[in-house]
Amino acid sequence: MAVFLADAPHLRVLRLLRDEGPVSRAELGDRLELTRPRLLAEVERLVAAGLIAEAGMAASRGGRRSTLVEISPRLRFAAVDLGASSIDIEVTNGRLEPVAAYGEPADIRSGPKAILQRVSELLAKARTDAAYERLDGIGIGVPGPVSFRDGVPVSPPIMPGWDRYPVREVLAREHGCPAVVDNDVNIMAIGERHGGVAHSVDDFLFVKIGTGIGCGIHLAGSVYRGVDGCAGDIGHIQVDAGGPVCSCGNAGCLEALFSGAALARDALAAARAGESPALAERLAASAGGELTAKDVADGAAEGDVTCIRLIREGGRRVGGVLATLVSFANPSMIVIGGGLAQLGHVLLAEIRSVVYRRSLPLATGNLPVVLSELEGRAGVTGAAVLASDMAFEQAS
Amino acid sequence: MAVFLADAPHLRVLRLLRDEGPVSRAELGDRLELTRPRLLAEVERLVAAGLIAEAGMAASRGGRRSTLVEISPRLRFAAVDLGASSIDIEVTNGRLEPVAAYGEPADIRSGPKAILQRVSELLAKARTDAAYERLDGIGIGVPGPVSFRDGVPVSPPIMPGWDRYPVREVLAREHGCPAVVDNDVNIMAIGERHGGVAHSVDDFLFVKIGTGIGCGIHLAGSVYRGVDGCAGDIGHIQVDAGGPVCSCGNAGCLEALFSGAALARDALAAARAGESPALAERLAASAGGELTAKDVADGAAEGDVTCIRLIREGGRRVGGVLATLVSFANPSMIVIGGGLAQLGHVLLAEIRSVVYRRSLPLATGNLPVVLSELEGRAGVTGAAVLASDMAFEQAS
Repeated sequence: MAVFLADAPHLRVLRLLRDEGPVSRAELGDRLELTRPRLLAEVERLVAAGLIAEAGMAASRGGRRSTLVEISPRLRFAAVDLGASSIDIEVTNGRLEPVAAYGEPADIRSGPKAILQRVSELLAKARTDAAYERLDGIGIGVPGPVSFRDGVPVSPPIMPGWDRYPVREVLAREHGCPAVVDNDVNIMAIGERHGGVAHSVDDFLFVKIGTGIGCGIHLAGSVYRGVDGCAGDIGHIQVDAGGPVCSCGNAGCLEALFSGAALARDALAAARAGESPALAERLAASAGGELTAKDVADGAAEGDVTCIRLIREGGRRVGGVLATLVSFANPSMIVIGGGLAQLGHVLLAEIRSVVYRRSLPLATGNLPVVLSELEGRAGVTGAAVLASDMAFEQAS
Repeated sequence: MAVFLADAPHLRVLRLLRDEGPVSRAELGDRLELTRPRLLAEVERLVAAGLIAEAGMAASRGGRRSTLVEISPRLRFAAVDLGASSIDIEVTNGRLEPVAAYGEPADIRSGPKAILQRVSELLAKARTDAAYERLDGIGIGVPGPVSFRDGVPVSPPIMPGWDRYPVREVLAREHGCPAVVDNDVNIMAIGERHGGVAHSVDDFLFVKIGTGIGCGIHLAGSVYRGVDGCAGDIGHIQVDAGGPVCSCGNAGCLEALFSGAALARDALAAARAGESPALAERLAASAGGELTAKDVADGAAEGDVTCIRLIREGGRRVGGVLATLVSFANPSMIVIGGGLAQLGHVLLAEIRSVVYRRSLPLATGNLPVVLSELEGRAGVTGAAVLASDMAFEQAS
């Protein structure tokens, strides 16, 4: 054996019980390739620490019956997904099943004090609603680059006041449990790998197309965050030097051409120019004189050609960037998520068409390009995975 | 501690002695954080296996003097770098210092039997010239995608007859030692990290611009090869849909616009169109009526504006792709190597300008873009590193 990448035995026990439910001691030993004395010592230690619990007798395997163990039913993890304009929270049990969930609008630009205050209020409400005593871990995703090591946002463009704010430290202190901070797209990728379409896939890209565009990079079994924590920030890749000016100041960035904001802008222009009956009708009915990506999705579903064209053009832009990334990273799957994934199969078909045509045949021979299965829950699912991983690690 | 990535102790001992030369037992124990009994047992085992040797007494550190150990001076590794039109071979000692070196033209399209036969002839010559008995490991790089696990080229576009040819098995059997096969750009990246400008850098991109264009991806301390072994194959990224047709059949691929072949083509056109006195003069003097990248480099050095323009245009193309990859991967360094690196600082300046302008400020705040230091020796250096790593691993 050469280089070996190994998790400590207690982590492997805890993750298996978290992900698969009650298992007998005998099966645990077999599955994790641990000797019986080693396993029994680990189990005893984890029971004493309150992380796992006895769960009755297993069905006989012929010899002496083995007792089942399970992740402690008393564990509680908080998963927080902060968007540009939303807070989503789930509190889960040890198996990461939600016991409470909240979602509400919130402007990330209100700053860390106000937003984290509201997070704490919602967590206090959860403690009452779901009747638990304390949290065992908190995972939080934020819409910007993060230094994962330091637990702070780093130069986040749409989060004024958050730069290097000690998010992890504040949450850990306030709730008396381990906390972990990551980028919002990374937690979506982790979520999709835990409970979605990328289940157990080691090398994949999770592309979030929402207000902005970002990419979670999962390589060789773990998230790759880059040297400064901004790997996957693909929204500002220039795709058309003559394109519209982006919020970042450059021209023709991917997300200036296709994102929630760009699509709303293009839909409004099409409605006003009389190019789309479906959009004109929706604009007339709208209170604020604005259109959204959902209007375009609905128009396309009715067969409005302009709506379909807008989605296709966007898919072509995204597909062009993804073709480059496929040639570079040679992943085994691409998952499309975020709010604009609601544009569905018209978008997906266009992205696939460009990726398959433009990337190397070897890299696309067996490359599924699929929609997220977890949709809006991808972020909180991943945040719960991170929270539990962190709690398990600190429990050693 | 959480996840731990650890190398076996014997590997850590062998790599340290390979890379740093003779070290005392006492210092080895300190450096590798091994207990004294554990270290002494490892050292004894490795001396018995002929991998390391006693090397006299160390200078006193105050107490009892410790004996030095070194990597065995009898070890020999063969490093082979196959290009599209060349074979380069170095045989090294245990410290990866060359004891014999050969280079000659060879057409990779001659097929694996002829090429590997010639490799064996050169290695037989090396054994006589450098007076050693046997090889302890062979590393070989080939100009195409490789299944690193299987030790075979996979669908290599410019290597007819090599698809899934058992290169590793053939070399290992013929020379009676472990062998390892990798892509040529990956071994250049490994070489540059071992003994070049990327020394000890964990996350960097090595961009080879030669006959074609490729990228070695070094992430979190090791080469990332992708699911099918074709990660980093960036030469066929489309940069101009209206560009010239590429050897792959698509239009406007990066290497159809800028590579050794593309530059020779553009130089010839410029010379014939009377746009470049420097190129016209060299064309008139050339025997075969052709021009090369070197002619363009020399013309630029003389101040010929067309030569400078051709290099700048190429740098802009490469820089545009690299800006995308920087936003995606957030590396800590970019190294430019391969034959066209001889275009030097005009090329580098243009690449830097585009990368710094188009990538995220956070990702480029501290991002050196530099020329390879090892130049033509990057490949054999990396192949020797791989050969020794493989030999050390199999020795356990």
